[in-house]
Amino acid sequence: MQMAWYPSKWGAGDEIGALHSLTPQKIVDAARLVKTGRTFNLAHVLEDGIPSVSFHGQFLYSTFHRHSVDLKSPGKLNDAGGMNTRLIMADHTGTHIDGLNHISIGERLYNGNLSEEITGSFGTIKLGVEKTPPIFTRGILIDVAAFLKVPAMEGGRAIPAEELRECVNASNLKITSGDAVLIRTGWDKYWMSDNSKFLGPVPGIDLSAAEWLEQQGAAVVGSDTWNVEVDPATPMRGADAVHQFLITKSGVRMIENLYLEEVSRENVREFLFVCLPLRIKGGTGSPVTPVAVT
Amino acid sequence: MQMAWYPSKWGAGDEIGALHSLTPQKIVDAARLVKTGRTFNLAHVLEDGIPSVSFHGQFLYSTFHRHSVDLKSPGKLNDAGGMNTRLIMADHTGTHIDGLNHISIGERLYNGNLSEEITGSFGTIKLGVEKTPPIFTRGILIDVAAFLKVPAMEGGRAIPAEELRECVNASNLKITSGDAVLIRTGWDKYWMSDNSKFLGPVPGIDLSAAEWLEQQGAAVVGSDTWNVEVDPATPMRGADAVHQFLITKSGVRMIENLYLEEVSRENVREFLFVCLPLRIKGGTGSPVTPVAVT
Amino acid sequence: MQMAWYPSKWGAGDEIGALHSLTPQKIVDAARLVKTGRTFNLAHVLEDGIPSVSFHGQFLYSTFHRHSVDLKSPGKLNDAGGMNTRLIMADHTGTHIDGLNHISIGERLYNGNLSEEITGSFGTIKLGVEKTPPIFTRGILIDVAAFLKVPAMEGGRAIPAEELRECVNASNLKITSGDAVLIRTGWDKYWMSDNSKFLGPVPGIDLSAAEWLEQQGAAVVGSDTWNVEVDPATPMRGADAVHQFLITKSGVRMIENLYLEEVSRENVREFLFVCLPLRIKGGTGSPVTPVAVT
Amino acid sequence: MQMAWYPSKWGAGDEIGALHSLTPQKIVDAARLVKTGRTFNLAHVLEDGIPSVSFHGQFLYSTFHRHSVDLKSPGKLNDAGGMNTRLIMADHTGTHIDGLNHISIGERLYNGNLSEEITGSFGTIKLGVEKTPPIFTRGILIDVAAFLKVPAMEGGRAIPAEELRECVNASNLKITSGDAVLIRTGWDKYWMSDNSKFLGPVPGIDLSAAEWLEQQGAAVVGSDTWNVEVDPATPMRGADAVHQFLITKSGVRMIENLYLEEVSRENVREFLFVCLPLRIKGGTGSPVTPVAVT
Repeated sequence: MQMAWYPSKWGAGDEIGALHSLTPQKIVDAARLVKTGRTFNLAHVLEDGIPSVSFHGQFLYSTFHRHSVDLKSPGKLNDAGGMNTRLIMADHTGTHIDGLNHISIGERLYNGNLSEEITGSFGTIKLGVEKTPPIFTRGILIDVAAFLKVPAMEGGRAIPAEELRECVNASNLKITSGDAVLIRTGWDKYWMSDNSKFLGPVPGIDLSAAEWLEQQGAAVVGSDTWNVEVDPATPMRGADAVHQFLITKSGVRMIENLYLEEVSRENVREFLFVCLPLRIKGGTGSPVTPVAVT
Repeated sequence: MQMAWYPSKWGAGDEIGALHSLTPQKIVDAARLVKTGRTFNLAHVLEDGIPSVSFHGQFLYSTFHRHSVDLKSPGKLNDAGGMNTRLIMADHTGTHIDGLNHISIGERLYNGNLSEEITGSFGTIKLGVEKTPPIFTRGILIDVAAFLKVPAMEGGRAIPAEELRECVNASNLKITSGDAVLIRTGWDKYWMSDNSKFLGPVPGIDLSAAEWLEQQGAAVVGSDTWNVEVDPATPMRGADAVHQFLITKSGVRMIENLYLEEVSRENVREFLFVCLPLRIKGGTGSPVTPVAVT
Repeated sequence: MQMAWYPSKWGAGDEIGALHSLTPQKIVDAARLVKTGRTFNLAHVLEDGIPSVSFHGQFLYSTFHRHSVDLKSPGKLNDAGGMNTRLIMADHTGTHIDGLNHISIGERLYNGNLSEEITGSFGTIKLGVEKTPPIFTRGILIDVAAFLKVPAMEGGRAIPAEELRECVNASNLKITSGDAVLIRTGWDKYWMSDNSKFLGPVPGIDLSAAEWLEQQGAAVVGSDTWNVEVDPATPMRGADAVHQFLITKSGVRMIENLYLEEVSRENVREFLFVCLPLRIKGGTGSPVTPVAVT
Repeated sequence: MQMAWYPSKWGAGDEIGALHSLTPQKIVDAARLVKTGRTFNLAHVLEDGIPSVSFHGQFLYSTFHRHSVDLKSPGKLNDAGGMNTRLIMADHTGTHIDGLNHISIGERLYNGNLSEEITGSFGTIKLGVEKTPPIFTRGILIDVAAFLKVPAMEGGRAIPAEELRECVNASNLKITSGDAVLIRTGWDKYWMSDNSKFLGPVPGIDLSAAEWLEQQGAAVVGSDTWNVEVDPATPMRGADAVHQFLITKSGVRMIENLYLEEVSRENVREFLFVCLPLRIKGGTGSPVTPVAVT
């Protein structure tokens, strides 16, 4: 039987979703995972030419003011020059998080909100990324590529629930409520080394895996590809089935384009995970610099 | 005697500066400050019309793709609509961090780098904000406005070292090496309620206070104004004297436009401070969403 | 009796409007107005800080690539450096033309098109400015400010039909079918000299004047203010009544922010008028550089 | 003997270059070429996905305000909705003109100006495209593709002076002082039909042809490719030799990405040519919509 997927279990007006499971106790427990004082940056560098899905458009940036020019500005009295750069980008650029208003099922968003009723010239008036609480929680790495003993999985290769479960078991880890689950496929090696490969068909979780992750209590699901979910999906499932299930039905955040090579190499499997999206009003996502701290 | 200010004490090639004091032990100690599991968001919302110094230009953003339109896209087979927004901004927008390449003393930047030698069309090839380590450290709030028993200090009112010291003492706090020191003037109440006031002359630390903070070991200095330092500065000192001392000479990061009202009201004085700049290659700063965790 | 305003007199599918009156004969006649070989630029310079209605947002531009940097680019073999700038702007920036899709009457645009049916992520699929024919026609200047013997009219001062007619008569001119009619109020003197004045209440034509101009056969109506029409309009008429009548009902193009001081000073009253909008697909207007040639 | 190429023949301070040859008589004569009253648009449509040289970056635009949303704006009293789009682009986008400050010979620009001395955060303080006079002159089409009886010339195929001369002779045309000379290679057929072909090696004039055109008096040289000059150039000449000769040494404007298919098909060889660049202060070029009028 098909269950109605809204209102969400957190109430009809809820805009937070699965991040409700970041309780004070969860936050305290996550902080206790910090034992060695090492930090791992999980974001790619934002630079000219980074891969970008055409839906989002190219990342453009450039030097704006320069010290040498600023020093000669009219009225300038002291010897302090300033510099800045200007950025042009979609809210889904580089390593980024998807907000609860990013994906619809037909015309409906998370918690049954109708897209047209809440969308304006400046994003949406509900579910905007500015309402995302700071993500400060336990993180675990599910290193599927290492489990399969490959540097990178094949493009288009699905990861079903069963395989994900085996991979977690093999690590002696257990997903708990509120966790950020990061799934490594090895795909980040193509970032800036082979961008057309990076943007092509990618390995990733299928719907069964997404459902299993949600049942285990994952509040955040991330991966090292541009889609997290396998692409192209099977003919029987529409593409974006994972996005629709996780984000729209379940209120789970997704993080794309993570850099997971270093944590894999250093055998980091459990950590404090922190991710702090820009508070773009009505925004549907944000570039982020997530970190793992051990 | 005027001391040469470069090479820095971390070596001639250093691009990290005072964040070297975020040692593993410091990071572990900072994590231990998390006891109640509460998080406080220290960033303003990025929205249409936010105050912006003219040097940086207006923050522009708008809805780009919409679910309703995307659902009708050519070749669309399933019922998943996507949405995003497009952002146009300086790297110094909203609540933001200043990188080590932001401010010069004449033509020279942190560690004596010559601006013109390292500046290109895409920021600088050294000192870029993408090299900033994750800022995960002890934070303390110096609540000068509360100390002075005013809702907000006067514009143009300087905070000298002596006053800052008294204020810290009154809180029974002590600045330690690697701390992020957040100075509250009450100015954030004008954000979006009176933007021309917000952008006008502001209260802030003077050079004596900046020197004292650096001596105490502060790695990060932030405030709730657009400048951290008092503006306008005294006639005897050029404006930006604090920026030059902290960033260019001392390798200390500055954070501007913090939202400190809530931590003040809740009497939060010591906390884990986390700030994760976007990794903009060669960027001179980044919008950020810093958090305090207790 | 209120007449239905669509379909337009040029047919239900028409996307050209009053520019249909730019017949081959009209174009030949317009060219014959060129007798002295003088050109007059009717556009303001696009520069940092130009006035911009908040609906459209700030004009931002900045140097992007520089010769000195480009000369040092990897793989550069010769001694040719290149430079460019990057522009960020609304299609209604500086001196600009309004397209037939710019203004609605309720949900309907020119020729009865429903806004939501033709609007997508990249402008509209009908009525876009890219379909505007080259505007090459007779132009006449109605110099109301000179007629009133004032350097500039008062903000908020309406120009009714009767006054416009008298002013044309006083010049011994006659509006003919397909003309571009430029109405001078003297307001361009405030451009970049007093931008807040420039953007405030402006003198301009009222609805009676717009109706009269359309009856005379004007295909284009321009002025030296940001609105062409008086602002604020009278309480009995909604603002934008002129825009709705000219653009939406009558298919007449409007041009805003014209620079008319020079043609006024040089007593140029009749001329070849050329205006060539950028062909932005689905765009609702375009910055332009119109010229008068005598 | 190598002649010094600056100061230019129009004086050391000149910023106009070869457009000085657009004398009043030339303008009057050009207007007299209008006999049938037909206009031909020579610009491609600016749309999502148009080809763009990586040096300039992608053309990005999107719907900003919409009528349906604007109608619901707070304080909206009447039934007029407004719409606009936002554009992000290099000043060299789509069909565009190159300004006199676009290309350097080493560090020097037209008339010997040193790039670094005149370049700031907002383009250059001399030679900016805002100073370009309205281009209103005689245009002629040199249809090399038709002359060679091919739909499009081969990529990388140079057009030397001799061939250009023969082609002009075959048309019974003569280049005269101040002309805009448009060279058709047939390349515009690849615009949006095969963008990677369009951006690849292109047919175009070589240095001998550029020198010959300048001797004939051409004030403007345009073509239907992204480079006008052949690319790649011969190993003996650096790429951009034509740009350097025409723009930097000779003060001749170049126009790229012209749409010449229609004028070719209609056998239009001589016409009034009008091109009106946006007046971007310090800009190095401008997207344009040139027209041919017969």
